[in-house]
Amino acid sequence: GDALVDHHRGLRQGAPEVVFGEGKTSDQILRIAEGLLNAGSNMLATRLDADKASALMKVFPDAEYDPLGRTLTIVRHPPQSTGLGTVLVVCAGTSDLPVAREAATTARMFGNAVEELVDVGVAGLHRLLAHLDRLRSASVIIAVAGMEGALPSVIGGLVAAPVIAVPTSVGYGAALGGVAALLGMLNSCAGGITVVNIDNGYGAACAANRINRRPQP
Amino acid sequence: GDALVDHHRGLRQGAPEVVFGEGKTSDQILRIAEGLLNAGSNMLATRLDADKASALMKVFPDAEYDPLGRTLTIVRHPPQSTGLGTVLVVCAGTSDLPVAREAATTARMFGNAVEELVDVGVAGLHRLLAHLDRLRSASVIIAVAGMEGALPSVIGGLVAAPVIAVPTSVGYGAALGGVAALLGMLNSCAGGITVVNIDNGYGAACAANRINRRPQP
Amino acid sequence: GDALVDHHRGLRQGAPEVVFGEGKTSDQILRIAEGLLNAGSNMLATRLDADKASALMKVFPDAEYDPLGRTLTIVRHPPQSTGLGTVLVVCAGTSDLPVAREAATTARMFGNAVEELVDVGVAGLHRLLAHLDRLRSASVIIAVAGMEGALPSVIGGLVAAPVIAVPTSVGYGAALGGVAALLGMLNSCAGGITVVNIDNGYGAACAANRINRRPQP
Amino acid sequence: GDALVDHHRGLRQGAPEVVFGEGKTSDQILRIAEGLLNAGSNMLATRLDADKASALMKVFPDAEYDPLGRTLTIVRHPPQSTGLGTVLVVCAGTSDLPVAREAATTARMFGNAVEELVDVGVAGLHRLLAHLDRLRSASVIIAVAGMEGALPSVIGGLVAAPVIAVPTSVGYGAALGGVAALLGMLNSCAGGITVVNIDNGYGAACAANRINRRPQP
Amino acid sequence: GDALVDHHRGLRQGAPEVVFGEGKTSDQILRIAEGLLNAGSNMLATRLDADKASALMKVFPDAEYDPLGRTLTIVRHPPQSTGLGTVLVVCAGTSDLPVAREAATTARMFGNAVEELVDVGVAGLHRLLAHLDRLRSASVIIAVAGMEGALPSVIGGLVAAPVIAVPTSVGYGAALGGVAALLGMLNSCAGGITVVNIDNGYGAACAANRINRRPQP
Amino acid sequence: GDALVDHHRGLRQGAPEVVFGEGKTSDQILRIAEGLLNAGSNMLATRLDADKASALMKVFPDAEYDPLGRTLTIVRHPPQSTGLGTVLVVCAGTSDLPVAREAATTARMFGNAVEELVDVGVAGLHRLLAHLDRLRSASVIIAVAGMEGALPSVIGGLVAAPVIAVPTSVGYGAALGGVAALLGMLNSCAGGITVVNIDNGYGAACAANRINRRPQP
Amino acid sequence: GDALVDHHRGLRQGAPEVVFGEGKTSDQILRIAEGLLNAGSNMLATRLDADKASALMKVFPDAEYDPLGRTLTIVRHPPQSTGLGTVLVVCAGTSDLPVAREAATTARMFGNAVEELVDVGVAGLHRLLAHLDRLRSASVIIAVAGMEGALPSVIGGLVAAPVIAVPTSVGYGAALGGVAALLGMLNSCAGGITVVNIDNGYGAACAANRINRRPQP
Amino acid sequence: GDALVDHHRGLRQGAPEVVFGEGKTSDQILRIAEGLLNAGSNMLATRLDADKASALMKVFPDAEYDPLGRTLTIVRHPPQSTGLGTVLVVCAGTSDLPVAREAATTARMFGNAVEELVDVGVAGLHRLLAHLDRLRSASVIIAVAGMEGALPSVIGGLVAAPVIAVPTSVGYGAALGGVAALLGMLNSCAGGITVVNIDNGYGAACAANRINRRPQP
Ligand SMILES: Nc1ncnc2c1ncn2[C@@H]1O[C@H](COP(=O)(O)O)[C@@H](O)[C@H]1O
Ligand SMILES: Nc1ncnc2c1ncn2[C@@H]1O[C@H](COP(=O)(O)O)[C@@H](O)[C@H]1O
Ligand SMILES: Nc1ncnc2c1ncn2[C@@H]1O[C@H](COP(=O)(O)O)[C@@H](O)[C@H]1O
Ligand SMILES: Nc1ncnc2c1ncn2[C@@H]1O[C@H](COP(=O)(O)O)[C@@H](O)[C@H]1O
Ligand SMILES: [Mg+2]
Ligand SMILES: [Mg+2]
Ligand SMILES: [Mg+2]
Ligand SMILES: [Mg+2]
Ligand SMILES: [Mg+2]
Ligand SMILES: [Mg+2]
Ligand SMILES: [Mg+2]
Ligand SMILES: [Mg+2]
Repeated sequence: GDALVDHHRGLRQGAPEVVFGEGKTSDQILRIAEGLLNAGSNMLATRLDADKASALMKVFPDAEYDPLGRTLTIVRHPPQSTGLGTVLVVCAGTSDLPVAREAATTARMFGNAVEELVDVGVAGLHRLLAHLDRLRSASVIIAVAGMEGALPSVIGGLVAAPVIAVPTSVGYGAALGGVAALLGMLNSCAGGITVVNIDNGYGAACAANRINRRPQP
Repeated sequence: GDALVDHHRGLRQGAPEVVFGEGKTSDQILRIAEGLLNAGSNMLATRLDADKASALMKVFPDAEYDPLGRTLTIVRHPPQSTGLGTVLVVCAGTSDLPVAREAATTARMFGNAVEELVDVGVAGLHRLLAHLDRLRSASVIIAVAGMEGALPSVIGGLVAAPVIAVPTSVGYGAALGGVAALLGMLNSCAGGITVVNIDNGYGAACAANRINRRPQP
Repeated sequence: GDALVDHHRGLRQGAPEVVFGEGKTSDQILRIAEGLLNAGSNMLATRLDADKASALMKVFPDAEYDPLGRTLTIVRHPPQSTGLGTVLVVCAGTSDLPVAREAATTARMFGNAVEELVDVGVAGLHRLLAHLDRLRSASVIIAVAGMEGALPSVIGGLVAAPVIAVPTSVGYGAALGGVAALLGMLNSCAGGITVVNIDNGYGAACAANRINRRPQP
Repeated sequence: GDALVDHHRGLRQGAPEVVFGEGKTSDQILRIAEGLLNAGSNMLATRLDADKASALMKVFPDAEYDPLGRTLTIVRHPPQSTGLGTVLVVCAGTSDLPVAREAATTARMFGNAVEELVDVGVAGLHRLLAHLDRLRSASVIIAVAGMEGALPSVIGGLVAAPVIAVPTSVGYGAALGGVAALLGMLNSCAGGITVVNIDNGYGAACAANRINRRPQP
Repeated sequence: GDALVDHHRGLRQGAPEVVFGEGKTSDQILRIAEGLLNAGSNMLATRLDADKASALMKVFPDAEYDPLGRTLTIVRHPPQSTGLGTVLVVCAGTSDLPVAREAATTARMFGNAVEELVDVGVAGLHRLLAHLDRLRSASVIIAVAGMEGALPSVIGGLVAAPVIAVPTSVGYGAALGGVAALLGMLNSCAGGITVVNIDNGYGAACAANRINRRPQP
Repeated sequence: GDALVDHHRGLRQGAPEVVFGEGKTSDQILRIAEGLLNAGSNMLATRLDADKASALMKVFPDAEYDPLGRTLTIVRHPPQSTGLGTVLVVCAGTSDLPVAREAATTARMFGNAVEELVDVGVAGLHRLLAHLDRLRSASVIIAVAGMEGALPSVIGGLVAAPVIAVPTSVGYGAALGGVAALLGMLNSCAGGITVVNIDNGYGAACAANRINRRPQP
Repeated sequence: GDALVDHHRGLRQGAPEVVFGEGKTSDQILRIAEGLLNAGSNMLATRLDADKASALMKVFPDAEYDPLGRTLTIVRHPPQSTGLGTVLVVCAGTSDLPVAREAATTARMFGNAVEELVDVGVAGLHRLLAHLDRLRSASVIIAVAGMEGALPSVIGGLVAAPVIAVPTSVGYGAALGGVAALLGMLNSCAGGITVVNIDNGYGAACAANRINRRPQP
Repeated sequence: GDALVDHHRGLRQGAPEVVFGEGKTSDQILRIAEGLLNAGSNMLATRLDADKASALMKVFPDAEYDPLGRTLTIVRHPPQSTGLGTVLVVCAGTSDLPVAREAATTARMFGNAVEELVDVGVAGLHRLLAHLDRLRSASVIIAVAGMEGALPSVIGGLVAAPVIAVPTSVGYGAALGGVAALLGMLNSCAGGITVVNIDNGYGAACAANRINRRPQP
């Protein structure tokens, strides 16, 4: 079975092992971080509360914490650029920003050039249409939206690039914690939209990274 | 309790009693129709199969059947015009046409001026934007869509008039028989969209009629 | 694309941009409020906790806070009357009052004449029937109910005006956080009832406003 | 363990073993019927298609088949009267009649006096209110309704007797095959409504029978 | 409409207006209580936290609070006995006790003789079978159970009396907050079991009272 | 990776490759059967319609078809006995028989001694209690039930052996196609009940076989 | 608004308008096909029954029909190659083949090099591991699986390329028509898996095409 | 009925009465513990918070508390060994550890030899394949996994022993609190996997114990 196991995940996927902060104590994360940094890695922790973050920043003064996206990053070696195009993270409303930011930070940590476009929900189309050029020049688009989750469908009809849809848990009542947006995106009438889990900005960035770093001839 | 009951439903709601064709035999409908026509009413039957319709048309040569919307109408007295504006029925795809047609026919039978706009789904925005004038001059808009049901949100952002959203059961898999579209519409980010049951073109027309015939000073 | 974008949402929909208070800090709302008021707008914040409200009221002494409906309003210019009839907000039980109040306040801020009718649930019909005249003279009715959500069906059978149904999350167990009431309303046996999201008093008022301010010839 | 088993179900529950016709061939039912009749029982088969019924009626000329309620009954010994009051079966619309009829026939076979009241849905209250006396003189009420299932709540507020609510699968879309009516009835704002499974007229009659034959001092 | 409204709910249903404590402040409940007591009523408050209860008990020293069932009762006039048999409240496990107790207290306040039987879940049948006599001599049985909710089916097969099933939210995971127990009870293979909402001990007692006080000739 | 693949599934799991008949033509099954038989295997086909079965039986006169369990078996070499105890398949009602039979036939084909116990639903406990000895002497019990699915809980409390619960799709309405029974079984108050998919008699037999053939020292 | 509409969808997305065959008559498809072919397009119809296909093949003798994937293709101009790598379509079981084939045919029609890998479900890992080289050399992987839908997670851990997961409706009971597989894929523990609708082989191919044709410098 | 009741549950199931700590005060648990210990039993409390545990440990200094699995054990008499093989508890990720630990501790308290294998999720197959020998020598395997819950399918294909799958509530969004993992496991393509409730490590251990202590000739 050895031939199967000789590639560690970092090499296989171009993605460092990322720490999922939720449900871990700052002590646990500290120990993991030390291990990763000693091994020469950069580090990304997601879903990290401000409390845990400040405990970590006392130990690692070069750490950066983004309270909006709830990510903490420690960059010792600038991530190797993927050499391809731009990952554009678009989001419908300001309430979707935490998820969009998690996606953007993750994609950057994987070496992608990332741009962000905020508050372009479909109930005010002119806001989106004002940015057609940026939409059409992106290499991959991550479209983040809660409530009815219509943004990816509209974008999917405007561009030829891959569109990764991220439903968010923004909304109440029949939003069902993001299930409404999820179902909307899965049933997009724009062909070729793909979807990740609710609030999964991290996963969308991983997918964008898989797309954007290909091919490496 | 008499004061409560002296208005028959026609007067109270501006809507004639409509026959729901599903689950009734053509004989049953025949007898209902004779009763209504003898009482001086026009008649509308919805959800009527072609078979039952042709049986009825042998008895009522002035009946008209629409195989797409599956409605049969017998008009002995032109419906009294509501005197207000136009009800515009808009639908996303050709598969949504049966529901849109049921809405249009019902609204016409209630005395409304009705226009229809087809195949303007949000994955090709230019199709919708090409009709901005018609959208903005309508008195009430009925927006019919299946799959992710995003059409009413986009229309709701473009016009100030009332928008009634009708989810359809068009789609498969995670469309969940129209539930995805229904949830999308209930969570519309465009304020003031209201929603009726899945495939309920009839109900949307009733609501449009309630709106369009007011006020009657 | 310019012709599409030259109308800001206020003009298009007759509704000022309303601040959704949930998930925003009082500082964030303060800054938004200053922007709106400086631009000459009135302001409505919904879903606002008492804590945030009192922080805002220190800065804006003319603000009014309704702890029941959780709305804060700052009116610098009396809203322009719509010139049409009355929006009647009816609710089934006292637990539904917060949602009813959100609807009433929102509709008033949009320039509508608003009346309220409370505690007229269908398990004690005489309470509702005692108000037939007010029901029948309203221009639009917003019917708010939790649990089985039967109120709009009963009202829909008594009046010819548009009825907007608002399910609330009142109830427990099989109420499923308002889904039972929502489904009940979508399946109303009274033709022409339309529905908004669970607890969405704001959306119901937006819809009532779309209806009540038409036509503007 | 013998003391537990010496009462056969008929004695314990006052209900003869009833044959559930669905999924059985007419041959199978024939053999069961012969067994029951030879043992001196009357027989009730529910959920029986017209085809199977006519096969059985050739063998048992005294059998009676009700195509609406889909029940077949063979009465060799008039069921012993329960000696208490009347079971009133009320239903909202004509589409609910099959379930109401199954309930009525079952209750009669158990020896209850049964009355029926049809087409008194809550969207036209006067229809129900015209029968207040019959409602208030019943010993047990079985209230059958599909769609939003509001009928039992309204009845529960008008009478002091037990009300058994039967949701039906009548409706489409968000009716979810009767789940909307079921949830509505479980969340009734009228205290003391109890509920049986969707379309379970048989079960409602069993419950009414349990109530109506008590006490037997 | 007057003939419809001259009976207040107490007379119609034999049940005093009960105060639902959840979501009300102790001040609100205080005012309601004063009104009820001044009008000569007894009072029952359900779903009342210990904090609110002790505030009320300072004002009404004759109030009694049950922390398990979370009910507060003030009895100024012993409730009029129903004159029929015993309401037996049975529950599967100790975690179901709060709901069982709410049912028992409510039924007592309505004038019923009430007995309780605890911890007789179906995974240890001998516990239930040891009480066959009490089960068979009850006039109405309220069967309370969470998790798979099998208790009412087993009891329904052992007795001829009415059985009201109350699902509880006891359990986790696939218990779905009581939905598993609710579905189990609705699908009971014992004919004539009726069901109320999850955790609705109050509603079960109302139903038992409707049954137990009949007939009043 | 070779060490991983040198055991074919038959050896690894003690189960021959079984043909799932649904969705295959009789021609396809014929070809698969020939392959298996030529390779020296016995064969079991599940979910096989009578039509396809008779086509196969013309080619394989030694095949046996069970129309109830819808299995076809061709035994060329008697399956090697597992040498442990008996697998007892118990089912609640006659409608559950097809699933019980699929389980029994599958377990037999895997070399297990199998017994069956039918129509012992929990609404008539004496039927089950009459067989305590057989229940207590079984090595593994497969308990098959639809509707509320309470049978495994009751059995689990009576025996110490492993109990595998199989929910069936028997029932209607709130049975939700077997989901009610499935949830009931997952929430069994009897510790140590395990569950397989709805109607999955095949899977239950595979699990019983895994248990019953251990250990093979 | 003109600048928005001057790109027809073919140019924008690299995908010809594809005909969705379900719910269309062969006459309707015939007319659409003639239009497309006259305009110089190739044509792909999906979800096409064999009956409709043979009607079309009489008119278009160069059409090719795949009864497994239910696609009909008419290629007048070989699709322009995307110039990038291979799209590898992998499926878990033979029952998933129709969806896999729809994906493969669609991707080929868009000009992609396509390979297929069948029957490599995770219950027999060696089957998948035997093809590690093909998995690792693909440019994009479409992983098709029903039941528990675990295949994409396992593949996602083995390769660095983009993985598009397609849940299928294969399975029964708790498979919930593909929802179980869909949820499994959305919750993949392998980072960067994206998902399309149940049975949506077409959509997966559109997404793969968006990925595989980039960049076009 | 006596013969039915003479075996207390410990004897019948080989499992001591275990205290479910959730929802009980430390005082209540204290009293239960005293009763059990005085009766000569060992004691296991599950779902116990650290606070309650330390209160108990002051009274019972020989108690041991595991904060990860949230179990407290008091062993006065070493549990009697089952004499059969090893129960292997395998879990996919570190977040699944609490459930795995609850299973391991419970199985040990029942007298089983238990081993644990952690962090062998299917997105990194080599981690699992490195332990093939331990997997294949276990007598029963408990496979614990959240998110998509694919681990039991992969293990089920690698071993012939019984595999009990435990879904966990680990995950977010479309994980639906463990329902996604539960559905995945119920639809496992590996024959003979059985499943317990979400997070039910205790139940899995009970099932493993039922399997592992058989036969006792
Ligand atoms: N297509 C439709 N969808 C929903 N409700 C309808 C439809 N057509 C008619 N109805 C309603 O059904 C009633 C007639 O039902 P029925 O008496 O069964 O024919 C009408 O008064 C309408 O309220
Ligand atoms: N319409 C019905 N709905 C639900 N249960 C029924 C119905 N009719 C009969 N039953 C029940 O089914 C049992 C007979 O089932 P079977 O032995 O399969 O004929 C009766 O004893 C009743 O408990
Ligand atoms: N009744 C059944 N339910 C579920 N799975 C089955 C059943 N019968 C056979 N199988 C499984 O289906 C596989 C054969 O599938 P196939 O290759 O499509 O014939 C067998 O190896 C079993 O794993
Ligand atoms: N198998 C399929 N699944 C989902 N969408 C499809 C499929 N085949 C075609 N489509 C979409 O349906 C559109 C054509 O729909 P229509 O105009 O109704 O033929 C195409 O442009 C695609 O977007
Ligand atoms: Mg915004
Ligand atoms: Mg179209
Ligand atoms: Mg009230
Ligand atoms: Mg009617
Ligand atoms: Mg207990
Ligand atoms: Mg039976
Ligand atoms: Mg296979
Ligand atoms: Mg891990």
